Amino acid sequence: MKQYMEHAHGNTLTLRSIGIDTYRENIIYMRADCHVCRSEGFSALTRLVVRHGPKNIIATLNVVHSQLLAHGEAGLSLEAFRRLGAAEGDTVSVAHLDPITSLGFVRAKMYGNELSADNLRAIITDVTAGRYSNIELAAFLVACSGDHLNENEIISLTEAMIASGKHLDWGQGPVMDKHCVGGLPGNRTTPIVVSIAAAAGLTIPKTSSRAITSPAGTADAMETMAPVDLDLDRMREVVKREGGCIVWGGAVDLSPADDILISVEKALDIDSEGQMIASVLSKKAAAGSTHVVIDIPVGATAKVRSQEEARSIGARMEVVAKAIGLQLRVILSDGSQPVGRGIGPALEAQDVLAVLRNDKDAPRDLRDRALTLAGVMLEMAGKCTAGSGIDKARSILESGEAVKKFMAICEAQGGFTEPGVAPHRYDVLADHEGVVRSVDNRRLARIAKLAGAPKALTAGIHFHAPIGKHISKGELLFTIHAEAQGELDYAIAYMKQENSTIQYD
Amino acid sequence: MKQYMEHAHGNTLTLRSIGIDTYRENIIYMRADCHVCRSEGFSALTRLVVRHGPKNIIATLNVVHSQLLAHGEAGLSLEAFRRLGAAEGDTVSVAHLDPITSLGFVRAKMYGNELSADNLRAIITDVTAGRYSNIELAAFLVACSGDHLNENEIISLTEAMIASGKHLDWGQGPVMDKHCVGGLPGNRTTPIVVSIAAAAGLTIPKTSSRAITSPAGTADAMETMAPVDLDLDRMREVVKREGGCIVWGGAVDLSPADDILISVEKALDIDSEGQMIASVLSKKAAAGSTHVVIDIPVGATAKVRSQEEARSIGARMEVVAKAIGLQLRVILSDGSQPVGRGIGPALEAQDVLAVLRNDKDAPRDLRDRALTLAGVMLEMAGKCTAGSGIDKARSILESGEAVKKFMAICEAQGGFTEPGVAPHRYDVLADHEGVVRSVDNRRLARIAKLAGAPKALTAGIHFHAPIGKHISKGELLFTIHAEAQGELDYAIAYMKQENSTIQYD
Repeated sequence: MKQYMEHAHGNTLTLRSIGIDTYRENIIYMRADCHVCRSEGFSALTRLVVRHGPKNIIATLNVVHSQLLAHGEAGLSLEAFRRLGAAEGDTVSVAHLDPITSLGFVRAKMYGNELSADNLRAIITDVTAGRYSNIELAAFLVACSGDHLNENEIISLTEAMIASGKHLDWGQGPVMDKHCVGGLPGNRTTPIVVSIAAAAGLTIPKTSSRAITSPAGTADAMETMAPVDLDLDRMREVVKREGGCIVWGGAVDLSPADDILISVEKALDIDSEGQMIASVLSKKAAAGSTHVVIDIPVGATAKVRSQEEARSIGARMEVVAKAIGLQLRVILSDGSQPVGRGIGPALEAQDVLAVLRNDKDAPRDLRDRALTLAGVMLEMAGKCTAGSGIDKARSILESGEAVKKFMAICEAQGGFTEPGVAPHRYDVLADHEGVVRSVDNRRLARIAKLAGAPKALTAGIHFHAPIGKHISKGELLFTIHAEAQGELDYAIAYMKQENSTIQYD
Repeated sequence: MKQYMEHAHGNTLTLRSIGIDTYRENIIYMRADCHVCRSEGFSALTRLVVRHGPKNIIATLNVVHSQLLAHGEAGLSLEAFRRLGAAEGDTVSVAHLDPITSLGFVRAKMYGNELSADNLRAIITDVTAGRYSNIELAAFLVACSGDHLNENEIISLTEAMIASGKHLDWGQGPVMDKHCVGGLPGNRTTPIVVSIAAAAGLTIPKTSSRAITSPAGTADAMETMAPVDLDLDRMREVVKREGGCIVWGGAVDLSPADDILISVEKALDIDSEGQMIASVLSKKAAAGSTHVVIDIPVGATAKVRSQEEARSIGARMEVVAKAIGLQLRVILSDGSQPVGRGIGPALEAQDVLAVLRNDKDAPRDLRDRALTLAGVMLEMAGKCTAGSGIDKARSILESGEAVKKFMAICEAQGGFTEPGVAPHRYDVLADHEGVVRSVDNRRLARIAKLAGAPKALTAGIHFHAPIGKHISKGELLFTIHAEAQGELDYAIAYMKQENSTIQYD
């Protein structure tokens, strides 16, 4: 009885592991008749502060009306256990959540007010600390979507995101980086560009993201060939030894706010301009980059649909880059169809390897794009005269120096493995003769995602029908790859709904 | 083994009751190693279709990594069990969710596109069917917040909400209704106006809402005196017998989309103009009302802060009302301070009873407001000449006919009870002498909510310091009421943070 009284007074509960994975959102499970619930007046969806020693998290309450928990016990979602650094049997205290001041700024933004640098810093600080529920994260993202952030706000958001995590320092000399403004399936130039640049003696500590709304991010594709979730110390070792690396940005804790926001952007399938610019440039700056090449593919079904839109985004990125002290070069490229043949992590990795290995049937479009970007980078860094970059890049690739450097980077990151092949496949054949007129990148990406990409690493699409190709009746247009029959069936069902993925006549 | 194979093939699982209350969001719990998870490739936060006989729901997946569920079992949140009409031991099948088309319209709205009537109908149909996650509901609400909905969109949204639920028909003659555009604590005129109007022989089948962001809605206050969650048949009986009722709108399934949206608006503490107008007028139209009086209190810390804003909202409401065939009268009233003395369900109910019973110390401001609104209503319905409405209303109140009608309505709804008094109270005293200059309605509402209102029915504030009152040092400004000591402490802590709730000097 005495112990119960102490508990009631101190609002403490003993943790029980119930093993529920709620993804990124912290959930605390408490009995409806628990003494803390009763004395504090908590109810379902209440947001609470959970304290464990010096650490604390904010969690959403789910009330348990069963024997899942004993009296005096609380459960936590797996992520909440991890964030709190707690184990079963540990004691936690729970308390009401003070009103989160920065949510007032989010509401002001909904009503069209401009956010100050201080406002955005407060919001990003709270997001990073896990103080926003998924609903609140969605509200912030949507309030900033469309063109609702002006240039000053994007600069402030970028600076706030940089400040939210670690900042890397690579010492003297230029530190190179590149980024492609998504939307183009298979456009996996990064491993090739990094290999060429590092082989030329440049420092290029590349952090890449996982897919947001696409079937694969560079980190997903790279992961099928080498480990990518290196911590900062391991990343430093790789770059010190090889000049470059290709790792997942989330694992090195650069711009952690961005990773939290991306999880909700993904669930909503949105990626707005202001958030995108802040996301990209904050990661570059936090990674210690000084020179960045930006590739913006333009096409009717790419993310950026017109030259005008691409120039506007490019100009805005240049303004923000300048404000935060980055040198930037923006390249507009063809975004009318997929690059290479693979769409999905392992399938894209196979294209990358074919280019690096100078295979005769390596996808020429992927090779040309990678050489263009590497050439610009070599010129920016003063490694060759203006206009000669692409020749220099080509000679590094064709000499075998690039693939040698790539394999060395993979070894340094933990060892190279050949990407696998999916067990379930379905060939999509032409039902008439014709010439390919257009390719719907969005539908292809959707099919690859329904087939399981990027979570199923070998899932996706192998694409055989580039624009302008003559197609005979019965010829292979593309193959869907999947790791589970259910996913393959689902992708096929979606594909068959409309016959417009590839137009040929 | 044979049964297992059938299960694996048909994607079926047996339901287990694990008793977790996730509020309105449907959650399905499945084992990480479950055959359906494996063969379908599901992972945490995946959205699934769960089928049970002819019914189906969409649920978010939480993956279980423990022995909480046995092989072949799935758990559902309490709300998901209820919506699916399922019981422990029932068999359900689960499948991937087809992309929700209407979410494309929500994304278009984020980018500033106008939504068509078809777009809004599709969105509201999916919201009503529970197809949106909380994140997606937040995205829709925020995309429509501020001034992002134009008049056509508000009209279409209103019509879509009306179509989402039942529509009541009360036969011939005018059907009266009233609504107050919130933001003013204690402004509980509805039970008084309904009693006067019904006593005058009018039909007034009043449905009220629970609190969205305030410490009490009319339904919350009324619930401390009589049952309010009547279904449609019960509501009809009450109105047939007494001419009027005061019930909770959610229980009669009018504009159910609105109830779902309100739960997320509440979590985000937002209530935007377009959604508000659609919410109010859809409920009125669905309830079969023909004549509506709208009260808009205006004040620096009320929801509507200026005469200009109030006139703009009023004009917009008139346009929408006309489009959907409602007669509307808008009254602008004083919103500078709380109405009556109570803030919180039971405390506001006590003020209502004092006015109805013609108590000598009944709050005069509440009485005057109720008589004004009832007077306008009597005039609109042709029960008296223009200008004589308030006199007629007063005579019905003073004669005792109003309180008699109110008690009859309560009896018809299930029986009258006196509202209770909270066990924990804290008096806030003046620390100096002065005259009350201003009252911060928002801070008072926040304190009442932290003290537990509206969920704790007797919690809230008893207010003693109206503007202009002379206050002696040590005199009572207000009393905080709470049902739990933890909530009382929390409200006191917030109140003490800033000394600006009531300004007197």
